Amino acid sequence: MVSSEQLLDILGNETRRMILALLAEKPRYTTEIAGLLNIGQKAINDHLRIMEEFGVIELYVEKQPRGSPRKYFKVNEKFNLEFTLTPGFFRVYVLNPHVDLKVLLEHFPEFKELQSRVEHIERIRRIEHYRKMCKDLVEELSRLTQAKMYIENLLARVRWLSMKLIDELNLDTLEKRVLFEVVAAGGEVSMADIADKCKISEEEILKIMHNLGEKGVVRL
Amino acid sequence: MVSSEQLLDILGNETRRMILALLAEKPRYTTEIAGLLNIGQKAINDHLRIMEEFGVIELYVEKQPRGSPRKYFKVNEKFNLEFTLTPGFFRVYVLNPHVDLKVLLEHFPEFKELQSRVEHIERIRRIEHYRKMCKDLVEELSRLTQAKMYIENLLARVRWLSMKLIDELNLDTLEKRVLFEVVAAGGEVSMADIADKCKISEEEILKIMHNLGEKGVVRL
Repeated sequence: MVSSEQLLDILGNETRRMILALLAEKPRYTTEIAGLLNIGQKAINDHLRIMEEFGVIELYVEKQPRGSPRKYFKVNEKFNLEFTLTPGFFRVYVLNPHVDLKVLLEHFPEFKELQSRVEHIERIRRIEHYRKMCKDLVEELSRLTQAKMYIENLLARVRWLSMKLIDELNLDTLEKRVLFEVVAAGGEVSMADIADKCKISEEEILKIMHNLGEKGVVRL
Repeated sequence: MVSSEQLLDILGNETRRMILALLAEKPRYTTEIAGLLNIGQKAINDHLRIMEEFGVIELYVEKQPRGSPRKYFKVNEKFNLEFTLTPGFFRVYVLNPHVDLKVLLEHFPEFKELQSRVEHIERIRRIEHYRKMCKDLVEELSRLTQAKMYIENLLARVRWLSMKLIDELNLDTLEKRVLFEVVAAGGEVSMADIADKCKISEEEILKIMHNLGEKGVVRL
């Protein structure tokens, strides 16, 4: 699976973003993409290969009614990335696309109606009906996005306040940094995660955690 | 304001991502960043200048108790970007950070308790308390993220079904593409938006919309 870092490297290229936008709509083949974007087939092929290597897209072969089978590319279904940057909050991560529907519908009972409308839409063959359904879902999405931003802002505030509190403690720079990462993570957090965030080795983290324990700041 | 496209160009660089992660924590000055990342000051300066130009970060000068004033950089407060890629769904956009709190609290009454806990946290000077608050907020965030993914999946499904329906209509490729963008947008959508998504001029869009109107597919 591609890391969020590698993904941003992949997305730091406009052509690749345009290809992904097309593939997110539906699976497509190389000459089709080259034609739609008006870019040479060789260049498109190179981009497709890179993205396939990183697991962002997948290749499959489909028989054609006439002529030889055709290679199609599609966005990998296991793929969902979210990225947020705002003061006090920098987060890039690849999401686990598994959603526990039962638990979710308990929290958001209003989703039941949306779900059942989507299930029945295939029977209705009027374009206007699809547009209305898209509209309602886009609105729900915007409501949830606002809610997320609100919670992110609260979290950013608490992180900032805890950093201020930690800054007043009698600790050296690295100890403060490690302590902050432990506090900000809130829940379970591995040595490897902290080491990665502070850009130092796990051994050093262990030593610093030991020091923090001796100073009575954390329980070991 | 930086466009989502420019932003992905900026983020397609590891050093810049590391700088942003540090600045999202708190404002910092150039030598501080260079020291933390163990990268030369000149390189850091170049990255800071680019990001400042695009409005992702801001520069301000702060007087020091001793010595000359110091230049600090911080993440621009008007800044909140979200990015989602999953089959049927490709969206990159810079969010409006303005949240209408009254409307939001009507939809999510459970946020009132979180809000008041955050408002009172400054009085409590125990690190463990901050960690617990971060934990609860991270959990709420994860619940909202799952809800968003669920709605995104529903939307992706409706978009896909509407594309299938449009594909069966007796229209040429560009007409199908424009019609799909209008349907998928759901609500209000400008000619400029559609032109941008289909990579053709607004004049052409107007002509195609006219054709679609004549064929009785859309009302003009």
